[in-house]
Amino acid sequence: MTRYIVAGGVAAGMSAASRIRRLDPEAEILAFERSGYVSYGACGLPYFVGGLVERPEQLVHYTPDYFRSERRIEVAVRTEVERIDRERHEVTVRELASGERRTLRYDRLILATGARPSAPPVDGLELEGIYVLRLVEDGIRLRQALEERKGRAVVLGGGYVGLEAAEAMRRRGWEVTLVEALPQPMASLDPELAEAIVRELERNGVEVRLGEPVQGLEGDRSAGGGRGRVRRVVTRAGRIEADLVLVATGIRPNSELAVAAGIETGVRGAIRVDAEMRTSDPDVWAAGDCAETYHVVTGRPDWIPLGTTANKQGRIAGENAAGGHARFPGVAGTAVVKVFDLGVARTGLSLAEARAAGFDAEAVEVHQRSRAGYYPGGGRMIVRLVVERSSCRLLGGQLAGPPDAVKRIDTLAAALYARFTAEDLYSLDLAYAPPFAPVWDPLLMAARQALRGPRGD
Amino acid sequence: MTRYIVAGGVAAGMSAASRIRRLDPEAEILAFERSGYVSYGACGLPYFVGGLVERPEQLVHYTPDYFRSERRIEVAVRTEVERIDRERHEVTVRELASGERRTLRYDRLILATGARPSAPPVDGLELEGIYVLRLVEDGIRLRQALEERKGRAVVLGGGYVGLEAAEAMRRRGWEVTLVEALPQPMASLDPELAEAIVRELERNGVEVRLGEPVQGLEGDRSAGGGRGRVRRVVTRAGRIEADLVLVATGIRPNSELAVAAGIETGVRGAIRVDAEMRTSDPDVWAAGDCAETYHVVTGRPDWIPLGTTANKQGRIAGENAAGGHARFPGVAGTAVVKVFDLGVARTGLSLAEARAAGFDAEAVEVHQRSRAGYYPGGGRMIVRLVVERSSCRLLGGQLAGPPDAVKRIDTLAAALYARFTAEDLYSLDLAYAPPFAPVWDPLLMAARQALRGPRGD
Repeated sequence: MTRYIVAGGVAAGMSAASRIRRLDPEAEILAFERSGYVSYGACGLPYFVGGLVERPEQLVHYTPDYFRSERRIEVAVRTEVERIDRERHEVTVRELASGERRTLRYDRLILATGARPSAPPVDGLELEGIYVLRLVEDGIRLRQALEERKGRAVVLGGGYVGLEAAEAMRRRGWEVTLVEALPQPMASLDPELAEAIVRELERNGVEVRLGEPVQGLEGDRSAGGGRGRVRRVVTRAGRIEADLVLVATGIRPNSELAVAAGIETGVRGAIRVDAEMRTSDPDVWAAGDCAETYHVVTGRPDWIPLGTTANKQGRIAGENAAGGHARFPGVAGTAVVKVFDLGVARTGLSLAEARAAGFDAEAVEVHQRSRAGYYPGGGRMIVRLVVERSSCRLLGGQLAGPPDAVKRIDTLAAALYARFTAEDLYSLDLAYAPPFAPVWDPLLMAARQALRGPRGD
Repeated sequence: MTRYIVAGGVAAGMSAASRIRRLDPEAEILAFERSGYVSYGACGLPYFVGGLVERPEQLVHYTPDYFRSERRIEVAVRTEVERIDRERHEVTVRELASGERRTLRYDRLILATGARPSAPPVDGLELEGIYVLRLVEDGIRLRQALEERKGRAVVLGGGYVGLEAAEAMRRRGWEVTLVEALPQPMASLDPELAEAIVRELERNGVEVRLGEPVQGLEGDRSAGGGRGRVRRVVTRAGRIEADLVLVATGIRPNSELAVAAGIETGVRGAIRVDAEMRTSDPDVWAAGDCAETYHVVTGRPDWIPLGTTANKQGRIAGENAAGGHARFPGVAGTAVVKVFDLGVARTGLSLAEARAAGFDAEAVEVHQRSRAGYYPGGGRMIVRLVVERSSCRLLGGQLAGPPDAVKRIDTLAAALYARFTAEDLYSLDLAYAPPFAPVWDPLLMAARQALRGPRGD
């Protein structure tokens, strides 16, 4: 009987464990998760915080009990894989509450340890009133703080989590300032699209401060010499009053466990894997936010931590740990975010990313209505395409517009997998009816623009 | 100076004329349109009839005056091209109001004569109170009739126009019965999806009668011996009281002008064209609903009259008439329709179409939520894929669900152009965030199902 140990029980880990169970009915499968929840949708946390989702349990797809009884997967929560001894094929796990340690033999090991918030290197992070939003427990704490009273919140970081959390805080009646070190939110977008996000934030009462790296957090020193409470965020441009600070300045892979065991890492310190999600140790696979991925446009390893990727990689890692040879097809970095009443989506490479990857790239942009002009309820859409100049090959795409219009990014994602040129995209037979699109779909108009060149000639 | 004559001034005709002007600034371009409007969105007529669109002018993209002054295209409305003399390179045009005829020389001729309603061969079609919905004038007449009073309407035909008109009539407060000769509405869908339409119609108070070919229309003979007014629709199953009847039983190509001139026709009597939209006469091009098209999945000529295709074909025909060699890339038959609060979309081949085309095809179907389960406002989506059994090549797809979810059909249209297998589709990196999709997108779930086979093994 083969024993599989899975370190990490969220998207990638439980996908791997489930896949192993399906392919190896006899296997012994043990999964360990640091937090108190497994198999949850971390991407739903901002909606729980904002109150659109009532209970944290709604974010949980399956409980440890379900895994035990229905899939015969032993899941231990609040338990961490602390150490790997690759030579002896053993891991040391530690129950966090008791501190109790156990050493367990494994035949095959899956690392799905995820990522964790990466705070800027400043003073004051230990103050009370400072939050992150990664685990279910983080969401519960932040929601409690927002419900207790209203006040001034400062969100550090204009990525997905920062944007969604800012909206959640406004829903809760807080004053919100979003502080971003870079000159724009969502660094993976071209500045033109990021501007639309800034406008939407400001339209909804969020103060946006760009190009302001945080220099420190100041609190009131409590009389008793305790931690004190955060009162101000200090940036290059001054001090911002704050009753609460959310640190959403990005994440980094939890690869220390692997590194300590001598397993190779690659891009951004993520665990290096091959197309079968195998690490440098043939008995160890890695998947999800702790692992590298492969970019279909550049053809190179990359690190793009997203929930979709984590689920898929987990499935592949599980399949291969159980003896298969499934290959992860790579990612295009497709992502979508709702910012109040604006939807923004991206896939492939931004113009900056394309140039950094060595492409002679240019971008075209069209502004079109999402529905027939005469049909009520549509809105203006921005479609931006990044293409290789010589071949007109599509390298990436970005959309902004009404939330119901931006899932069309998937059409561009398919185009990237198919290595379409702008002409191929222009040839597509896209669906038209007045409630859904203009007769010339905005994606086709953008493709036509790309064929003409960026100056419309 | 080259003289181009364009017969038909709606989508294909005016696209062709505009393209010619762009490529040949010296050309003389004359366009003739039977109806009183050019360059209008015929697909918007049901929304004008229902009152979502206030004025018929809103459906018109450009007026004859605009074409004359801005594009130097001479447009004559209420004027028909009656006859082509190919040997002499002449057309005879007739002004409908005066009956006056002119004979005009052409160098190159574009046929964009469109299609017209095809009524069943029954008695009573001459009665008062019987309508069609094809031209702007038809829409104005039908809207007036619906506004004058309320009563019982019978819609003959469950295609796009019939479905959208039934909704428009309910908006106007009429009782509506939809009568379809076939056992389902929307013959281009698999029955499973068509059922969702029937349920949505019935939920909104439309009586649906399927498998009931119309046998006749009965009226009250007026005392003065006039036409009389329609009172009943007679089907195999009985008589249906009717104060108004809309005949929406399909359309057929207006190819008589071409046929009389000895130009070849093909599928369903549409004008035969090559990939450059050239007819059997090298100086005559055809585009739009009167012309054949090419199906990217079957690789064969087909006739799929849709507004998107008409616009694209017109552009290609114009480009080539002006000396170019653009090729029409073909269609996948992508279409979408809103039926009250349900969106339905299709692309490629239905299961029946695939089998008729000689494929050993099977279909898989999944029912999934359109958004993350915990996120408010989503709904159940049906995703159906038609695949070739041996290769798992994708042959078609169909979606039904919340209107904001079904434009995702475009992703499947792109997949058909790229000749994706179900495995290729499954490998796509589709956008995920809770307001937009579950972490496993419904399209991916359907692809996975196709990889397992229709019985889930």
